[in-house]
Amino acid sequence: MEVIEGIADLKRERRHLKEPVGFVPTMGYLHEGHMSLVRRAKKENSTAIVSIFVNPTQFGPKEDLDKYPRDVPRDLEMLEKAGAEIVFTPMAQEIYPEGFCTWVDVEKVTENLEGAHRPGHFRGVATVVAKLFNLVEPTRAYFGQKDAQQVVVIKRMVGDLNMGTSIVVCPTIREWDGLAMSSRNSYLSIQERRAAPVLYRSLLLGRKLWEQGERNPDDIRKEMAGLIEKEPLASVSYISVADPETLAEIDTIKGKALVSLAVNIGKTRLIDNITLGE
Amino acid sequence: MEVIEGIADLKRERRHLKEPVGFVPTMGYLHEGHMSLVRRAKKENSTAIVSIFVNPTQFGPKEDLDKYPRDVPRDLEMLEKAGAEIVFTPMAQEIYPEGFCTWVDVEKVTENLEGAHRPGHFRGVATVVAKLFNLVEPTRAYFGQKDAQQVVVIKRMVGDLNMGTSIVVCPTIREWDGLAMSSRNSYLSIQERRAAPVLYRSLLLGRKLWEQGERNPDDIRKEMAGLIEKEPLASVSYISVADPETLAEIDTIKGKALVSLAVNIGKTRLIDNITLGE
Repeated sequence: MEVIEGIADLKRERRHLKEPVGFVPTMGYLHEGHMSLVRRAKKENSTAIVSIFVNPTQFGPKEDLDKYPRDVPRDLEMLEKAGAEIVFTPMAQEIYPEGFCTWVDVEKVTENLEGAHRPGHFRGVATVVAKLFNLVEPTRAYFGQKDAQQVVVIKRMVGDLNMGTSIVVCPTIREWDGLAMSSRNSYLSIQERRAAPVLYRSLLLGRKLWEQGERNPDDIRKEMAGLIEKEPLASVSYISVADPETLAEIDTIKGKALVSLAVNIGKTRLIDNITLGE
Repeated sequence: MEVIEGIADLKRERRHLKEPVGFVPTMGYLHEGHMSLVRRAKKENSTAIVSIFVNPTQFGPKEDLDKYPRDVPRDLEMLEKAGAEIVFTPMAQEIYPEGFCTWVDVEKVTENLEGAHRPGHFRGVATVVAKLFNLVEPTRAYFGQKDAQQVVVIKRMVGDLNMGTSIVVCPTIREWDGLAMSSRNSYLSIQERRAAPVLYRSLLLGRKLWEQGERNPDDIRKEMAGLIEKEPLASVSYISVADPETLAEIDTIKGKALVSLAVNIGKTRLIDNITLGE
């Protein structure tokens, strides 16, 4: 496994890699969710490249950029064991040099959900992913369904800008009690960690209601919110029942629906989702 | 020469082209300015690809999209003679399909000059060039210095987004009387055409003043405006003396300076520029 920090080094190395190339962009502090993407990238390609970059432009001014968890030595050990060929760990000043002023702006699908609560977040995500795609030139790139809106935004960007990379979406990986794996879970106290599975439990309740024939998103949201409110450490940011492609809220569930939510557990904002009708 | 309209056909063809590939994006209605780019692309690469696409997103609502001059049969004849290998003539609905919502936004260098007078223009330019670069995957792309701000914006975008294409800037090609070649010159009446060289004459006056030691942009602009105002059919939109890279207006000319202007000749908006200190 080769660890590459500089852009020029990456470009030089890129010329000699065996095609096809699978790419997993991450912010590090890896967990089983990331590793499932890396394994899939290994399996489907001749070369697997992983990037570790805590992208400053996708954090809001009041968000957790400075305290975002980092442990690159451990990440590298995990990636070595998983058989990644290349790990790209660029410095922020090389990704965003002085005078940087170009942004990839995906509209419409960024208006709701996380986009509504985190202004500028998806502009930062789309811009850094576009940059990484241009540098890594992957055949396929792997993203987790846990960040459902991110997946929609990236797919939209790739299609709209005619990028040559295929986007592969992998299932959310969960802890034994249903909590979706996330680097931010490390912020939780023991009490908060015990409360956190309420997100997934509320999603399962939503699915159960739908399976019982409920097609009114208002009723589903109300039941889900009721469940979450019983948990004293949890407070709902939003619960959404939306079209999986446009992310517009649905009046009556007919085909597929993306049920997603954000919940603050103490001071930690967690998100999760399931798709109905798949 | 092969004329390709569909994106899928272009992608299929692209795989078999001899590298390196030179690319000249145009809006058609070709003139010697374009042809100088095509010849340079031929000379420096194994394959020359030219696109003809009147990009709707770079026109403002009150601008000349509908009446922009078009003559594709003549364009193809000129390109055939010049030895272009591939001409890409996509349809607007394939470049901007329903639901399209991703934009490349270059900030700062788009705030002044044309950007200030044509809101959204450079967002449309940057977006379509990004799309075309992703489709054509050129080794080098050729642009005319006549559109000085466009060159700065494209270079900025390519650098900021780590695109793998080199930008080659070619000198402005002029008519015998100094008028910079432009498809929009076809809008001019005989009287207006006679008045139009005033842009270049004012630029030459600016250069002469600078050669005589003038370093105050205000004085240069004043003299240039005075010359243009003597021409009854001409009215100045702006005259700028700016840093060639940031496009910020200069207080005192020290190193290089981009002198650029936009002038309405009747109802036709023309632009031109020269660089001092090169």
